[in-house]
Amino acid sequence: MATEIKKIAVLTSGGDSPGMNAGIRSVVRTCAYLKIECVGVYRGYQGMIEGDFKPLDARSVNNIINKGGTILKSARCEDFRTKEGRKKAYDQLKKEGIDAFVVIGGNGSFAGALAFNEEYNFPVMGMPGTIDNDILGSTYTIGFDTAINTVVEVIDKIRDTASSHNRLFFVEVMGRDVGHIALNAGVGAGAEEILIPEQNLGLERLLESLKRSKKSGKSSSIVIVAEGDKIGKNVFELKEYVEEHLPIYDVRVSVLGHMQRGGNPTCFDRVLASRMGVKAVESLLEGKSNYMVGIRDNNLILTPISEAIKAHTEIDEELVRVSDIMTT
Amino acid sequence: MATEIKKIAVLTSGGDSPGMNAGIRSVVRTCAYLKIECVGVYRGYQGMIEGDFKPLDARSVNNIINKGGTILKSARCEDFRTKEGRKKAYDQLKKEGIDAFVVIGGNGSFAGALAFNEEYNFPVMGMPGTIDNDILGSTYTIGFDTAINTVVEVIDKIRDTASSHNRLFFVEVMGRDVGHIALNAGVGAGAEEILIPEQNLGLERLLESLKRSKKSGKSSSIVIVAEGDKIGKNVFELKEYVEEHLPIYDVRVSVLGHMQRGGNPTCFDRVLASRMGVKAVESLLEGKSNYMVGIRDNNLILTPISEAIKAHTEIDEELVRVSDIMTT
Amino acid sequence: MATEIKKIAVLTSGGDSPGMNAGIRSVVRTCAYLKIECVGVYRGYQGMIEGDFKPLDARSVNNIINKGGTILKSARCEDFRTKEGRKKAYDQLKKEGIDAFVVIGGNGSFAGALAFNEEYNFPVMGMPGTIDNDILGSTYTIGFDTAINTVVEVIDKIRDTASSHNRLFFVEVMGRDVGHIALNAGVGAGAEEILIPEQNLGLERLLESLKRSKKSGKSSSIVIVAEGDKIGKNVFELKEYVEEHLPIYDVRVSVLGHMQRGGNPTCFDRVLASRMGVKAVESLLEGKSNYMVGIRDNNLILTPISEAIKAHTEIDEELVRVSDIMTT
Amino acid sequence: MATEIKKIAVLTSGGDSPGMNAGIRSVVRTCAYLKIECVGVYRGYQGMIEGDFKPLDARSVNNIINKGGTILKSARCEDFRTKEGRKKAYDQLKKEGIDAFVVIGGNGSFAGALAFNEEYNFPVMGMPGTIDNDILGSTYTIGFDTAINTVVEVIDKIRDTASSHNRLFFVEVMGRDVGHIALNAGVGAGAEEILIPEQNLGLERLLESLKRSKKSGKSSSIVIVAEGDKIGKNVFELKEYVEEHLPIYDVRVSVLGHMQRGGNPTCFDRVLASRMGVKAVESLLEGKSNYMVGIRDNNLILTPISEAIKAHTEIDEELVRVSDIMTT
Repeated sequence: MATEIKKIAVLTSGGDSPGMNAGIRSVVRTCAYLKIECVGVYRGYQGMIEGDFKPLDARSVNNIINKGGTILKSARCEDFRTKEGRKKAYDQLKKEGIDAFVVIGGNGSFAGALAFNEEYNFPVMGMPGTIDNDILGSTYTIGFDTAINTVVEVIDKIRDTASSHNRLFFVEVMGRDVGHIALNAGVGAGAEEILIPEQNLGLERLLESLKRSKKSGKSSSIVIVAEGDKIGKNVFELKEYVEEHLPIYDVRVSVLGHMQRGGNPTCFDRVLASRMGVKAVESLLEGKSNYMVGIRDNNLILTPISEAIKAHTEIDEELVRVSDIMTT
Repeated sequence: MATEIKKIAVLTSGGDSPGMNAGIRSVVRTCAYLKIECVGVYRGYQGMIEGDFKPLDARSVNNIINKGGTILKSARCEDFRTKEGRKKAYDQLKKEGIDAFVVIGGNGSFAGALAFNEEYNFPVMGMPGTIDNDILGSTYTIGFDTAINTVVEVIDKIRDTASSHNRLFFVEVMGRDVGHIALNAGVGAGAEEILIPEQNLGLERLLESLKRSKKSGKSSSIVIVAEGDKIGKNVFELKEYVEEHLPIYDVRVSVLGHMQRGGNPTCFDRVLASRMGVKAVESLLEGKSNYMVGIRDNNLILTPISEAIKAHTEIDEELVRVSDIMTT
Repeated sequence: MATEIKKIAVLTSGGDSPGMNAGIRSVVRTCAYLKIECVGVYRGYQGMIEGDFKPLDARSVNNIINKGGTILKSARCEDFRTKEGRKKAYDQLKKEGIDAFVVIGGNGSFAGALAFNEEYNFPVMGMPGTIDNDILGSTYTIGFDTAINTVVEVIDKIRDTASSHNRLFFVEVMGRDVGHIALNAGVGAGAEEILIPEQNLGLERLLESLKRSKKSGKSSSIVIVAEGDKIGKNVFELKEYVEEHLPIYDVRVSVLGHMQRGGNPTCFDRVLASRMGVKAVESLLEGKSNYMVGIRDNNLILTPISEAIKAHTEIDEELVRVSDIMTT
Repeated sequence: MATEIKKIAVLTSGGDSPGMNAGIRSVVRTCAYLKIECVGVYRGYQGMIEGDFKPLDARSVNNIINKGGTILKSARCEDFRTKEGRKKAYDQLKKEGIDAFVVIGGNGSFAGALAFNEEYNFPVMGMPGTIDNDILGSTYTIGFDTAINTVVEVIDKIRDTASSHNRLFFVEVMGRDVGHIALNAGVGAGAEEILIPEQNLGLERLLESLKRSKKSGKSSSIVIVAEGDKIGKNVFELKEYVEEHLPIYDVRVSVLGHMQRGGNPTCFDRVLASRMGVKAVESLLEGKSNYMVGIRDNNLILTPISEAIKAHTEIDEELVRVSDIMTT
């Protein structure tokens, strides 16, 4: 980048996740620390197109590190997928004198940034913010740790009440394409079975597993079902199927929904977002662009956005095995 | 009661509720304090019929005051509704030398105790343990306070993420016949609309309310729906109805389910259960029988079980009005 | 009151308590509902004297019902204790066209309101906001329920780790003059001993109690000490005393401090504050003045402020007894 | 190891940490899965010396994954530091037919295992269980994540109430020799200053930092002080010092103490402990001994115990820098 960066914008994009505010705060305060101007973009790329900007100084982000959601709001934006939309966004950024931006979001948000950069050679940096933990180039995404704790706390409560014999609980958790929440929260909560999008364990195995669990002396069982479960039945259909084939079971259902996106972020997510924000701003100032900040073995690393969005994360086979062993 | 009471049994019956363990602990420790023997009955009346007893001393109930569920397990018991079942239970109690029992549960459990007392003139005392708060003779039941906090905490998380415009959340909470959880948690969580079993507000009003909420500048809304909502549609049917009639809204659903019965009891529920346990045992020792311990204006009172189970609690009109005003 | 009330101010005063925001929200939204103007006064009486006002409409109080602290800030104000200070405050209120105010706070705040009303015949209404629960005329104050839950959750954690033998924990909780937090949280957490300002149990009894607890088979004990404990030793002095006289004990200390004033309010505190706000505004509009809104047996009542501040709350003897029995 | 391993013992040793139960459960269930006998040793090495053993099968560890503390109790044991003590332990293990053990604990516990292995060539495996995160060979220890979340949640509450101007809070957290809790929780909670054992920032810098924080417009500040803070003053001495040198500040103190060791473990700690337990048992069966299971970049690794206990963890300079930037 030839141009010196004097003004950086920050935005949150796509589905929100806990810790995004900590990420915003970090970008803003790092700018303040380094005497760079910082501008908040409201409602993601939509606000960028509309010029919905607001200058942010160090005090603008007081008392947000512990809040879920995002003070900048977030949105999915169809317009930014078009050349025209990105043109408008570029004009707005130029008008505001913005030299670079940091986008906190998931793969879709990064793809937008990449397209924008390719067209305008505009410095961009990504921070992975999603509860799904499905971003290549980072062992953890901002929000994942909070989400799995939310699920685990809920299942702890359900287990408390599982005192009656022959009771079976199905708990639907988020995850249309990936099962990281289901798998981690399932192991953390001691679920008897975990149904994920990456593997079709099949209905037979579910019934077998429930029978075995019953025979082993457990008086109740909890099954976690990711939204995108490969079996292809939703949680209520699974309930009917099991009640038909294992009539001894009285099945109860919880559908967790959006509580998984909210809540005060955990310490892990706050620290992660704080570290990533520093790295994102400093990398821009070092002339880097088109990278996503990630974490590997507790070290911050940069991955080209073009690579980060190329592939999918894979299911953690070791954790699947741990889950199997734990349900002995 | 002519017979001196030297041995008291305690059981939990019906759906479990947070704070039952604190109630058990209180009955056990009050007995220990007063040098009365105490026996735990497992799995409610079913265990009574089967003689599933275990002596409990003060140390047996260490470290349970903060645990959800019930260490004695709970169950619904069809057999106890029959004369034969109650005969068996009586024989078991006599065989064990038990002189009286305290049952922690809801209306069904109390009706059983009443029938038993009428047949055998056996000293019984009830403690209201249910998350539904639907027991006449007590302003609060053990478990209600915990349940409404669970719901409120979940909705707080959902609200965090309600950053997108035009998003509407339906949250189904427990309450087949009564709306106390829905109403209290709804006011506590700042819900825009609360659908309860006691009132048919009608679908028209729901649509009106949502339109008004939108017009007033709110970018998202949360509607609480009790299971037994009078409108007669379940939460997914309501979602379809609203999406059809108010297409601007993107509706998301959470079904909380049994998490509402679990969790560590709140301080309120623990203190309430602790106080009620003392009162229950002392009342039995004073020769009283067939009463339920309740709380009114922070004082413990006794209500004849026959009265307690006769009528329904009524909807709190003041609170309905507060809810209406708060959604301005 | 001859003058019709068209504009109401609301302020929080003294030490803050969780639920104050819910109270502010309720006053504001009740005004909006009844088409009355509402004005927020910042930093309590200090802001009133300085004219630190801001109009509040229904949307100004979005998303605050679940937040601890007070968006209006709070302060103790020496100036308002003087005739001159109150004169300035009156002039500011008149200048702003304010016809009445609702103050959320404790006894000191109410005394100020009373003096002000006597001098200017200005309509005032109080809402009890303090974690101490020491206000006559209300069974519960806004914030108390949250505070006792905070303490209980902390002690639950401490108890988890009390696995080693002969370990004793002293936990200092708030309460300079009253022991309601200590007593309720102590019963709720299953503390072995509770030292409060209202009773001098004496050091002898403490040692006796600890010896008995040890002998009864408990491997660890928790003692709650209110700040204003009558024995007159602070928690570190008590530690030294016990370690000297009962050397088998390894004593650990926690001083909870201001965490007890914060945190998201419980459902109970939110509902209580919401109900009280409606009552406060409606009572002012009915021409009432100089009352504090309170709750008795789940009904809202009005108590003349002059009475509310006259006397002290008393220790709950029944609860002291329950505590004694529970530590069997 | 020539001998085939048919029976494995598991113990927890030293200060307990949240997640130890999940670790025990994992060792037990992995043994059950692999048809190996498993024996629990109570009270750490002390129980090993005394032969305080209990066979554990898969059902013995039901419903403990979510509990703080350790069902096996823990203790520090002087006797095991002597040759005689270890001889007794060996005899007990032999008598019980135990072929190997897994110890969950910190450096002291590992040193004991190492000495034992050297003397008796007895297969041992370590799992790092301590809230301090001060074990070489593992990026995370079991319990650390829970502890930092406990601290952060407490400070969130304190910050809520920090509404008054010129208020300063000192919060003492655990960490006699290492500042990992202080540093991570401090960044996560947005503390203005963090005093740790590894660095003597000096009292001057503290005063400067507080003055700067004040000037930057912050109305309140939170300072985290690790127990072993290098400045050498305890938290009450620091309070006095600051109040003397910066009289505008009203300083309040919280001493968190043992709450940091308890609480339900986070999902992270449960998953970590579950994975480590599998690895520990499988490594023993593969004939490995004298290793500690650790985690690096989300992969489980083995480090020779002799290396793990040799050196200290170092302060995370990057995180110190992030903290400095965040307090801008």
